[in-house]
Amino acid sequence: MSSSSTSLAISENETPLDNIEQLELLPGVYDNYEGVIVEMKDPMDPNEFGSLLRASLSQWKQLGKRGIWIKLPIKLANLIEVVVKEGFVFHHAEPDYLMLVRWISETTNSIPANASHRVGIGAFVMNSNREVLVVQEISGKFKGTGVWKLPTGVVNEGEDICEAAIREVKEETGVDAEFVEVLAFRQSHRSFFTKSDLFFVCMLQPRSFAVQKQNSEIEAAKWMPIDEYADQTFVKKNSGFDYVAKVCLAKANNNYTGLSAIPTYSSSGKKTYLYSKLDI
Amino acid sequence: MSSSSTSLAISENETPLDNIEQLELLPGVYDNYEGVIVEMKDPMDPNEFGSLLRASLSQWKQLGKRGIWIKLPIKLANLIEVVVKEGFVFHHAEPDYLMLVRWISETTNSIPANASHRVGIGAFVMNSNREVLVVQEISGKFKGTGVWKLPTGVVNEGEDICEAAIREVKEETGVDAEFVEVLAFRQSHRSFFTKSDLFFVCMLQPRSFAVQKQNSEIEAAKWMPIDEYADQTFVKKNSGFDYVAKVCLAKANNNYTGLSAIPTYSSSGKKTYLYSKLDI
Repeated sequence: MSSSSTSLAISENETPLDNIEQLELLPGVYDNYEGVIVEMKDPMDPNEFGSLLRASLSQWKQLGKRGIWIKLPIKLANLIEVVVKEGFVFHHAEPDYLMLVRWISETTNSIPANASHRVGIGAFVMNSNREVLVVQEISGKFKGTGVWKLPTGVVNEGEDICEAAIREVKEETGVDAEFVEVLAFRQSHRSFFTKSDLFFVCMLQPRSFAVQKQNSEIEAAKWMPIDEYADQTFVKKNSGFDYVAKVCLAKANNNYTGLSAIPTYSSSGKKTYLYSKLDI
Repeated sequence: MSSSSTSLAISENETPLDNIEQLELLPGVYDNYEGVIVEMKDPMDPNEFGSLLRASLSQWKQLGKRGIWIKLPIKLANLIEVVVKEGFVFHHAEPDYLMLVRWISETTNSIPANASHRVGIGAFVMNSNREVLVVQEISGKFKGTGVWKLPTGVVNEGEDICEAAIREVKEETGVDAEFVEVLAFRQSHRSFFTKSDLFFVCMLQPRSFAVQKQNSEIEAAKWMPIDEYADQTFVKKNSGFDYVAKVCLAKANNNYTGLSAIPTYSSSGKKTYLYSKLDI
């Protein structure tokens, strides 16, 4: 991205310096796709902002720009209506900001899709006695049912799946563990408003064994014989849970190989995990 | 979810019907987590809306509600500022609406995370001559470089990965294909603003062979000997691409088994794909 700081003089007459009426454009950064990203930071009068926005749009159109992005922090929520009135739509939001976008070109709209999935992990951690690490949750569907589940959790922003599995096991049970591989994954839809879920079942090798539940979401945690885990009624009556339990049993019996986390590097040196079989 | 439509009379004095000053609450739906979801549909004066919102929050707090969700269509953007002033933050946005949320309970905030990942697929389609289906893209990093890539695309909202792979191959090349398995996947971060990407390399079996590029994003499409594909400089110099090519070659040589799409069913009958090895 290259930075852009342009200004458009609306009068070319020579006038004393303190009388120049100059209409500045909104501060924008150009991206590699003929787009402009404007990140508003300071409060501004909505009418003044509207004028600047209209002048900027006109200028960017002349420059052949296509997608215009405006990022508004929540403290500038009073400017949202102005941006919407100029034909922008919402693109995505995080707690502290809203991103709006408008396609100003005659070409086909190629604005990239918004994030569509939440990503979670379930951790299969087994000790040398064929006991699996399980928890009971304080809230949710299985509260008070006596059901024992694998530790699960949501992958944080920017977190690798293999790291999230280690973190969640530690947070929920106090057990240190090492990531081995992804055994299976499940994609489910409309799990939260219109969004989908990707849930990765990860195999981990324990490095400590003392169980100490540490999470405010966890009622109890313990090691449980793997056959007892797989025989629970709730596992049997949901074919997804049942299949996952069978995968874990197959892994316990050395009859299953999942996908390892293989660090790869782009030409610029960025490290990215590829989950794949090792034996290629 | 159960529907709720409550009203709170602010005066209990007996008065003629047309003089009753009654403050209605915002229409809300109760969820299973002591939450309330309000979906605004019709225009309302911001001041009137603010009064209703404050009265509603007070009532919901008394009822022990915890998370309050307000969904505003973009046409009601003038109400966003009012909601923010009442302590709400943004949760997520789609082009036509913004979702705001506020935790009103003393208990630990357990508002679920927003979607964090975009999901894409790359399709490895090979014919019986060990030729792989490849494309050149009209825009992006490899435009005009002569680089041949696997067909790729973004998984649509609510779409299964195995279906998306079939659709993208058809859209970009005109070739009909059948999903076989997921060979590998890659998770990369900050690929788009703060969001991450999950990219699934899918093996497909072709069912038709005539190539006809159909997508406005595709410059060219053809069948190419797999060794020639893997030997391209851009593949060699990026260890992620190189590893994927090696996985595809291993698959071509019958030395690799990925994860199949196995339909599973919840106790309520909802079908969900679990991606796992078949031989358990």
